[in-house]
This record gives sequence, structure tokens and C-alpha cells, in this order.
Amino acid sequence: MHRTHVKVLEGVLDANDTIAGANRADFDAHGVVVVNLMSAPGAGKTTLLERAVRELDDVRVGVLEGDVQGSLDAERIASLHVPVTQLNTDPGFGGECHLDANMVRSALPSIPLDEIDLLLIENVGNLVCPAEFRVGEDHRVMVSSVTEGEDKPLKYPLMFRACELVVINKIDLLPHLEFDVDRFLYHLDAVHPGVERLLVSARTGEGIGEWREWLVRAATREPSIA
Amino acid sequence: MHRTHVKVLEGVLDANDTIAGANRADFDAHGVVVVNLMSAPGAGKTTLLERAVRELDDVRVGVLEGDVQGSLDAERIASLHVPVTQLNTDPGFGGECHLDANMVRSALPSIPLDEIDLLLIENVGNLVCPAEFRVGEDHRVMVSSVTEGEDKPLKYPLMFRACELVVINKIDLLPHLEFDVDRFLYHLDAVHPGVERLLVSARTGEGIGEWREWLVRAATREPSIA
Repeated sequence: MHRTHVKVLEGVLDANDTIAGANRADFDAHGVVVVNLMSAPGAGKTTLLERAVRELDDVRVGVLEGDVQGSLDAERIASLHVPVTQLNTDPGFGGECHLDANMVRSALPSIPLDEIDLLLIENVGNLVCPAEFRVGEDHRVMVSSVTEGEDKPLKYPLMFRACELVVINKIDLLPHLEFDVDRFLYHLDAVHPGVERLLVSARTGEGIGEWREWLVRAATREPSIA
Repeated sequence: MHRTHVKVLEGVLDANDTIAGANRADFDAHGVVVVNLMSAPGAGKTTLLERAVRELDDVRVGVLEGDVQGSLDAERIASLHVPVTQLNTDPGFGGECHLDANMVRSALPSIPLDEIDLLLIENVGNLVCPAEFRVGEDHRVMVSSVTEGEDKPLKYPLMFRACELVVINKIDLLPHLEFDVDRFLYHLDAVHPGVERLLVSARTGEGIGEWREWLVRAATREPSIA
């Protein structure tokens, strides 16, 4: 059974890459830079988006919210008066645990590409499958909350490799956790040596300035931190 | 593409149920009760297992650890001197984001079913797909950490429905979070009315006595809390 399953997966991934390429061409034609935001459930992606969107004055932002079901996050973002599109993976997509290129393609007509410079895509909360499916993005960012533990890069290495930036969130909770930042970074460097990283607290605002600056640089296609 | 994909998924699920039935028959033949433990990454499943296993004196416990890659959790459990089997979904299974019945079946020869009363299966950290795949278990337990937010039952309703017990973990962090337990329970009851729930801190030990009692009752096939 599983040999077949793996082959089906390979076919799905090939088809996905073709459609991701088409998405990318459409984004490029409209001059829109796309960031795909991935994390485990509850790592703080939506709060990080809210924080960023609120003060990205010179960049016109749009948001695509991916969820299995519901529109809670889209409603939070919409209250900030940026164009937001909800994409549910449940109806018609079999309750998928990730976004793929075809789902994003199906949402394109609802996204005002002519009116934005930067599209932030919030993927489904999951540390496995989203890393396997490109959607036509320019950059992939993963968010890891310190409450999840120091071992996560070693347990989900593909996710920590499949990104250009790791945002380490909820650092305001560090005094209350047994989480050694240096050990986490050591594990991170073991699976993705030298990847850019930001230490932030979406709740207190610590590090959020750097997060906004990273997004502005991404949106203006300037070279990254380094 | 997705219509086909959904059909493939239905076929996979049918095959899965057949194999889950075979697993269940094997477990029953050996008098082993099986609990499938599911959660998002970093919710504290392994620590809850460690806590429980350490003092379940009258119950002979075995553990099956599911991970995409690596054996960090299995090593933690093995140090407690209970039989533990590592199942990686990466080699040969295409990096699956969940355990399925066939994977568990492939691990059965490594599990000393004659020497245990209770098999605790730690699933891959994921709030979507594990809920769709029965593995032959008697009970499904999901662990939700308060750091993940109050909205999780609404965003991942299938997972919160596909279990007989919800363990709400990391309550020692409540003073440092904006997490209203009553609101979480309200959301939980909206998707799974009246499901059993335990408030625990695997770190401080609060509520761990009740968690052990629940497992002992499960192992002795006595009726549940209620």
C-alpha cells in the first residue's frame, strides 16, 4: 500500500510544482512579493501578522488565510483594514492539513493583486506537510514558539530547512519555561546552518521592529539581513 | 486534481479501517488495551507519558513512539525501563504526518504484547490528519496545551471530536498567558459536548494523579470518569 502511496505523493508534488510556477508567474506579473508563513498550531502566526500589518505603512499588504475550517483568523486580520481572503481546506479539498499550489490558485481571483505589494499567506498550522508544498511564494518563514520545546528542529527537520527565516516567538515566556535558547539554536544550526532567525514576542512587541523590517526588505526585493 | 485526491483519500481510509480492525483483533487476543495519544507538536505528550509510566505500578505498560524522524522521545521513555518501540514515518512511509494502521501493524512484531496490559501510542504531532486514521486503539486522547490558545477546538474540530478524553496541559503557565479556561471549555463543548477533560501540568505534577487514574481505569476496562 505504502509504495503506491509514495508514488501518488510524488505525482501530486510534480503537479503541485507546475501550478506553483503558474502562481508565481501571476504574482510576478503584478509585482507582488509573496511570503508563506508556516508553524505548528498556536505558535502565533496570526498575532505576528496583526503586529506586522498594523505598521507596514509604505507597503500595501494583502493576506491569504489558510485554515481547515472557519474564518476566525481572517476576521482578526480584516479588522485591521487590509484585504484578506479566507481559504478553507475542508470543503472540496478533503480536509487537507496544508495549503497547496492549486488551493492558492483557486483563491487568486479573490485577491486584489493590482492593489498590493506584499501577500502574506498564513498556512495551516502543521510542522510536516506545508513544507512539502510550494505555493508560488518568494519566501518561506516558519514560526517556532519557545513553548514547543528545544527539540523541534531535530524532530521536524524538513520544516526548519524549508524556510529562509525562523521567527522564534513567545520569548516573553522564557522566564517561566525550561527552554535554553542556545540549545534550540544549536539544534537549528544542525539542520539548517546559518538560517536567519529573529527572537520576538508578538505579545509584548519585543523584536517586532526587526520582523517588520524583514518584511519591508522582502517586499522591496532588497537583499536579506545577513 | 482534487476530486481524484479526495477519492484516493477515501480508498486509503477504507484500507486503513480494515487493517485497524486486524490490529484491534491482535491487541484483544493478547488482552492489551491501546490508547492513541494525539496533539500538536510540543503540547507535552512525551512528558505526560513519562509522568504516567513512572507510577503505573499495577499496570504493565508498553509505548509505541511515532515520529517523522529520530528517536528522541523513545530514548526518554526507554530510560524509564518500559518496553518502547520507535516508529518513524519518514523511511518507507513518505514522511507521513500521522500514524496509520499499516504503520502500527508493521511495528507489532517489535512490541511484546504478551508482557504488557496497556500500550500507549504517541502519534506524530499534528492536529489534523491523526484524527482521520484509526490504528486499532481502544481510546483516543488528545492533549491541548494552554499556550496554543483558546480557539483551537473551533479551528481543529475533527481532532477535538475524535477523542474520548481531552488533557489540557501546561496549566502552570496560565498566570503568564491571556488564556481563559472557561472560554476554551465553552469552545470545546461547542464541538464535542461533554467530552471528558482533565486540567494538568506535566511539569509541576498538578492533575497527574487523575491522568494516571484515567489510564488505570482504561487498562482495566472499567467504565470511564463520568
